[in-house]
Amino acid sequence: MSDTTATQDTTAAQDTTAAQGSARIEAAHAAFEAARDAAPRTRAGWLEAVASALEANADELVPLAQRETHLAEGRLRGELKRTVFQLRLLADEVVRGENLQATIDHADPDWGMGPRPDIRRVNVPLGVVGVFGASNFPFAFSVMGGDTASALAAGCAVVHKIHGGHQGLGLRTGEIAAAALAGAGAPAGLFSTVLGREAAELLVEHPLVKAVGFTGSTSGGRALFDKASRRPTPIPFFGELGSINPVFVTEKAWDLRKEEILDGYAGSFTLGMGQFCTKPGLLFAPAEDTGELAGIIGGRLEDTPASPLLSPRLREGYDGAVAEVRGAAGVEVLIEGSQDDAPRPTVFATTADAVRSNPALLEQEMFGPATLVIRYPRGTDLAELASLLDGQLTATVQAEPDEDLASLLAVLREKAGRVLWNGWPTGVTVTYAQQHGGPYPATTSGTTSVGTAAVGRFMRPVAYDSFPPAQLPPPLRDENPWGIIRRVDGAWQPIPNGGAR
Amino acid sequence: MSDTTATQDTTAAQDTTAAQGSARIEAAHAAFEAARDAAPRTRAGWLEAVASALEANADELVPLAQRETHLAEGRLRGELKRTVFQLRLLADEVVRGENLQATIDHADPDWGMGPRPDIRRVNVPLGVVGVFGASNFPFAFSVMGGDTASALAAGCAVVHKIHGGHQGLGLRTGEIAAAALAGAGAPAGLFSTVLGREAAELLVEHPLVKAVGFTGSTSGGRALFDKASRRPTPIPFFGELGSINPVFVTEKAWDLRKEEILDGYAGSFTLGMGQFCTKPGLLFAPAEDTGELAGIIGGRLEDTPASPLLSPRLREGYDGAVAEVRGAAGVEVLIEGSQDDAPRPTVFATTADAVRSNPALLEQEMFGPATLVIRYPRGTDLAELASLLDGQLTATVQAEPDEDLASLLAVLREKAGRVLWNGWPTGVTVTYAQQHGGPYPATTSGTTSVGTAAVGRFMRPVAYDSFPPAQLPPPLRDENPWGIIRRVDGAWQPIPNGGAR
Repeated sequence: MSDTTATQDTTAAQDTTAAQGSARIEAAHAAFEAARDAAPRTRAGWLEAVASALEANADELVPLAQRETHLAEGRLRGELKRTVFQLRLLADEVVRGENLQATIDHADPDWGMGPRPDIRRVNVPLGVVGVFGASNFPFAFSVMGGDTASALAAGCAVVHKIHGGHQGLGLRTGEIAAAALAGAGAPAGLFSTVLGREAAELLVEHPLVKAVGFTGSTSGGRALFDKASRRPTPIPFFGELGSINPVFVTEKAWDLRKEEILDGYAGSFTLGMGQFCTKPGLLFAPAEDTGELAGIIGGRLEDTPASPLLSPRLREGYDGAVAEVRGAAGVEVLIEGSQDDAPRPTVFATTADAVRSNPALLEQEMFGPATLVIRYPRGTDLAELASLLDGQLTATVQAEPDEDLASLLAVLREKAGRVLWNGWPTGVTVTYAQQHGGPYPATTSGTTSVGTAAVGRFMRPVAYDSFPPAQLPPPLRDENPWGIIRRVDGAWQPIPNGGAR
Repeated sequence: MSDTTATQDTTAAQDTTAAQGSARIEAAHAAFEAARDAAPRTRAGWLEAVASALEANADELVPLAQRETHLAEGRLRGELKRTVFQLRLLADEVVRGENLQATIDHADPDWGMGPRPDIRRVNVPLGVVGVFGASNFPFAFSVMGGDTASALAAGCAVVHKIHGGHQGLGLRTGEIAAAALAGAGAPAGLFSTVLGREAAELLVEHPLVKAVGFTGSTSGGRALFDKASRRPTPIPFFGELGSINPVFVTEKAWDLRKEEILDGYAGSFTLGMGQFCTKPGLLFAPAEDTGELAGIIGGRLEDTPASPLLSPRLREGYDGAVAEVRGAAGVEVLIEGSQDDAPRPTVFATTADAVRSNPALLEQEMFGPATLVIRYPRGTDLAELASLLDGQLTATVQAEPDEDLASLLAVLREKAGRVLWNGWPTGVTVTYAQQHGGPYPATTSGTTSVGTAAVGRFMRPVAYDSFPPAQLPPPLRDENPWGIIRRVDGAWQPIPNGGAR
């Protein structure tokens, strides 16, 4: 995005036209071609420049985000810190060359199936990636969030569709990022933004777009996934759609830690007004006395601050989902929320039998401060209950370390991308082992959108067969000029200088 | 597949009914659940048992394959050796735990974005995989070929759709494999076979099938890809469809090695009667004199043995594709083949200008012993010509080591999964660095179906967050009971005993 265009957009905030969108995609493709062979340290420098620029502009960006999203300042500062950290962690990963998965097999006349030629493989970036920002994390899953950061780390160019819920912040973040990239020497157009529905569809349909990263609703995400799959040349669509994030409390844990568990639950489902992809929307507990349950949770909710939801459209969806659950057979209101502009939390309760007769109840995501407790009778097979669930980002057990939970954990592993023990799913650390993605409809692929493993989504392998040394790309030359981690003749070689930058 | 069912199939060779197909998929799912936590050495033992059984039965299987495919005995024995080697290489990889990508991040109170919980990720198998065998490699891409072997190595169960072109061989191979697995202690149903169209569709549509591996035609593959993508819960479809495998001869190489290059070309495009996914179907060369070209190639083709194609249906497709190319504007016949039952090779020639006006000519796969030479005038920009191509499994350059080919290689890298230097694409070694898969329509995903990297296609990551040690699965326990390769706090750790079995 040129500064001129961005400034015009900021002033008028008009939707990007198809012609403007195409021009940005074409500019992104040209930038990708210019940048795809950049050395790891160069690329890492670009990510670092964006990280520093976001950090330097925090005092402008955070108040802008507050105004547009109603999220609290502390939460937004934490989220910006996480976004900056993520860019730097990915920069380190780029320098280590982990994403390249460079693999060298020297010629071997004695190879078991017959003589092997010299063959070497490296991951290359896909090209232009379309990224759709989420409304609920205006920094970490938006303009310079995980999808954009990992696509840039992969060596791709990004055209980002700004979420309408924080348009001003999105445009300003885009300007700051584009200026930082330009200042660090990245080719113009490597990162740009678009606004509006027409440009959004173009991002999935344009022949030069080679992959899409998306965080949003199940219906919207599925429609775009279908569009991506039906192209003459289909492209991968990495979509994070819906997740209810069940929590299973064992009888033993309930007996020992009922109050502590309900305390954590109340804190987690109301965090950020319940607007987390990983909000615990279902709690399976052996609770007998609904009055006691309401008393404990209600007490914990008294001090919860309330604020408006992220957008009127989202509020409408929340109200509809809450009404659906409220009207379902066998559901009772444990704690009545409010219909205020800043709604108070709502807690429903139902029984194991009710969800067995109506498993759809387990698929109703209430995106906001509402949740459903499923009371199960003692002696219930939790694995059987868990098998009623759809795919999830997370599943949690509240249990004691000496319990035999093999059958429950086996089911949860099939249902979720991250399984937690005695924790709460709303915290998602950015690290090497993170997995933020699970079976459909949680995500449309088995990959993660958080952590270092997110980078590989935007790359594909290319093998070089029998190449003379001078014609090989740097990551595959014997002398390892980039100093990256590589697998050579089957064994991983340590990074020459330990991977220090 | 029970032995009884298999024996009935062998006798009658009737199509599998929907009920039979569903029963095999359900049995496969049960076997998957029973086997998914098997230790690496156990799983490697199953692969080894299949390898040994195929080896032990070579003298029965190879003649069966000869009768059904018309392929030569030597080629088939080599292919069986490759198939057996592949199973053993994957068994070694399983023992090393490369496919698990086990990653451990210990809790870190000083982690840059805020305190990090203990979080550990491992790949788990997807479940039941449907595999569609190819006609042209009755061992290496069929019943116990790369897709099946890598899915079993991943920990999945496999239901294999036997190709109608070698049904007897397929059924017998299936029996031998199932018996070997049973003898090695694998749960019944972990591998089975089905026959016919109804069962084939079921393999893509059944809710318990979690992924598909396919090798076949572009039209058939795309139809199944669409089916897989349109399911209520979409599943990954790893399809290898069509590839023409262009070869670019530079002016310098042509001047120095014209005869040698045409010799290699003639040998490669007629290998196995041209029925290779990697057959060189296009040769771009600065040839001026078509008479000379016909003379050299024709001389090399004289001794080429001819045999019938794999199946009447494939022959029909070949005749149709040859007729299409023959009838295209600007195409001349350089060497006239024959319409015999065992057709003699056909070589067409055209010009760079002709393909520029009709790039569809570059997308016409003639699956059999036919190929097209594109004569380009000296001074032509080969990168521009290459940019007209669709996605390919392979692209080859015939060039001299001191030439500057950066722009051509940059385009070929975008177009193909494997780029060869002064070689011929028809040899595909099974190794760590192999990449057999390229941009659409070569394959429907960026992954490889050959080599050790094929295993990861059939797995998805699961993270364990804050688990007590005793509740963690073995690959993620600190003591590393399986002795596998792991990344711990960002750094890969060597395999404890060097990975020896």
